[in-house]
Amino acid sequence: MPRMRIEELPTPCAVVDLSRLERNAARMAERMTRLGVRLRPHVKTHKCAEIARLSVRGHFGGVTVSTLAEARGLADAGFDDLTWAVPIALDRIDDALALGARVRRLALLVDHPDAARALSARTRGAARRTPVFLKLDCGYHRAGVDPEDAASVAFARELSELPGLDFRGVLTHAGHAYRATRREELHAVARAEREVTVRFAERLRAAGAPAAEVSVGSTPTMSVVEDLSGVTEARPGNYLFYDAFQAAIGSCVLADAAFSVVATVIGHARARNELLVNAGALALSKDAGPTHVDPRCGFGAVASADRSRSFPGLRVRSLSQEHGELGSDAPIDYDALPIGARVAIVPNHSCLSAAQFDRYHVARDGVVVDAWRVLRGW
Amino acid sequence: MPRMRIEELPTPCAVVDLSRLERNAARMAERMTRLGVRLRPHVKTHKCAEIARLSVRGHFGGVTVSTLAEARGLADAGFDDLTWAVPIALDRIDDALALGARVRRLALLVDHPDAARALSARTRGAARRTPVFLKLDCGYHRAGVDPEDAASVAFARELSELPGLDFRGVLTHAGHAYRATRREELHAVARAEREVTVRFAERLRAAGAPAAEVSVGSTPTMSVVEDLSGVTEARPGNYLFYDAFQAAIGSCVLADAAFSVVATVIGHARARNELLVNAGALALSKDAGPTHVDPRCGFGAVASADRSRSFPGLRVRSLSQEHGELGSDAPIDYDALPIGARVAIVPNHSCLSAAQFDRYHVARDGVVVDAWRVLRGW
Repeated sequence: MPRMRIEELPTPCAVVDLSRLERNAARMAERMTRLGVRLRPHVKTHKCAEIARLSVRGHFGGVTVSTLAEARGLADAGFDDLTWAVPIALDRIDDALALGARVRRLALLVDHPDAARALSARTRGAARRTPVFLKLDCGYHRAGVDPEDAASVAFARELSELPGLDFRGVLTHAGHAYRATRREELHAVARAEREVTVRFAERLRAAGAPAAEVSVGSTPTMSVVEDLSGVTEARPGNYLFYDAFQAAIGSCVLADAAFSVVATVIGHARARNELLVNAGALALSKDAGPTHVDPRCGFGAVASADRSRSFPGLRVRSLSQEHGELGSDAPIDYDALPIGARVAIVPNHSCLSAAQFDRYHVARDGVVVDAWRVLRGW
Repeated sequence: MPRMRIEELPTPCAVVDLSRLERNAARMAERMTRLGVRLRPHVKTHKCAEIARLSVRGHFGGVTVSTLAEARGLADAGFDDLTWAVPIALDRIDDALALGARVRRLALLVDHPDAARALSARTRGAARRTPVFLKLDCGYHRAGVDPEDAASVAFARELSELPGLDFRGVLTHAGHAYRATRREELHAVARAEREVTVRFAERLRAAGAPAAEVSVGSTPTMSVVEDLSGVTEARPGNYLFYDAFQAAIGSCVLADAAFSVVATVIGHARARNELLVNAGALALSKDAGPTHVDPRCGFGAVASADRSRSFPGLRVRSLSQEHGELGSDAPIDYDALPIGARVAIVPNHSCLSAAQFDRYHVARDGVVVDAWRVLRGW
């Protein structure tokens, strides 16, 4: 197939800018090396073996997954050191153990004794013990045990003694970093993430639960953190693509965003000073975005298809299933955006948008150089 | 494979309740017959050939699609009368014409002269003319020409004369019905949808643009409308599944919802009176739902996996990629929802949730009787 330019792709489609991706990958890899931790990049944002391979350059090759579909696809691609960083669902234990038997290491996550005991009941007597992490709540208040609760320490001790399990340590995710409104605030969350987690791991060790590994990570905190002493590994993932949300809270600038959805102008609503494109809620996701930073942020930032020109005033105001409505406070330049024109939209949340596509068109300098499969589903 | 019960399916997964689906399909088919219009059901909600087949029972067999992926999949399954009800993107004209050549009829949609002229330029001289509809804005203000604008009539006349095109008539979608807060308000939108569209078609005919077909339809309006005189066909789609949004605005009751996501309890946050399940923003979509009816609606309604028991106080308060946080104003009965328990979640917006899955598990009376493919993508 002759190489196409981005402007020739059928829309809507997902485009990954290779230069930006490589730069984002290299910057985080260097940063984690400098801070003395192993990088175990999360693949949940891109769900793609080629990108995972690019993201582990300079590090040990381990990755983090959010689904068994990602884990299976990466195992097929040769990855053999995986952490499934969602508390294990009891009905997926058998599937997980089957995959674990195919790779060198598939670590699982627990934050409730019932899950740990169920896992132990199925792994006791197995040839290899199953690596497990204790999920810690460092302030996000989604999953994880409370670091201040004595029961959490008792649970870790039980976990370290349960047959069939290999207690590896503590794992946390500072998702509350997404509540920040600017880069300076991310520093405080990053400091707390490290301190809470390292201190808890020390308490476990003192109590006889040998927490060898201390795993932290979110893209916002890992993009700014300057001290990771006591931490053994970091698991950011979104940084490979970044997105409009990350730019709004200061993890990156918008020009860093490596993922965009390319769409076509299919309507002009001049009376309302609006444009219609053929990328809607399915292609872009209905993630409301950083409304705490900008209540009128809309659903993504708009540029020309090759991103050489941005349209800073244009916002994706509204999304229905296959329609995106773009509006602006200033009069829209309809001559620059005629019916049939292509635009690139950097979505609020690249993780949710990327997962809508079966493949990425990979571009460098506006030319499509490859197509990579997305490991969707569960 | 032995038949499984819903409670045995690996989670998260998409379940279609066959009895509810059949009832929803039959009710709308009868209603449209009684009102004297042809039903051309929209497949965008389910994207599934088996469900499309079920939805055309008692009608002429035509369907509506939102993507070429749906159109191709349905053509492969034997459907030969399709309307692609999104204004045509210029870069997809060739793909659409190629598919149109494979079926008896693939009608396209335009609302801008530039699109109509581009379409004509590619179809003039073809063996068959391409059926086209003029998209009309009946009050939703997304796509479509303004019925009050004289230019709209002039455009219709041009459309009816452009070489290569077969001007079929007027098509509209009363998406503003979703702004209603109760069933009574839907009646007013349905009346206006019919009146505006029929009146505009009459103006076109008087002006020499022969609008043979008058196509209307949204699930809320078609669920309540009592007069469709002057209308030739209706295109509702969501009614086959319905969802929590439709129940909130009065299109249906929650028990009608035929689509749910089955998930597993993976965490107990007793201190916060919350539960964690393994269905997050990808499985359920981040559609904010009917916040204009209930600002605290959350992201879906929760029941037992087989939906024999509902948990009306439980709400999906927050979604991240693979985690759903359920909360309640009343103390949660953790004994009824232990770690590993399954729940069924009826999402806010079944269209966006269903499209996340590659297949549906089809169940009757709690037993999985089939698996149907979802025609995802573009």
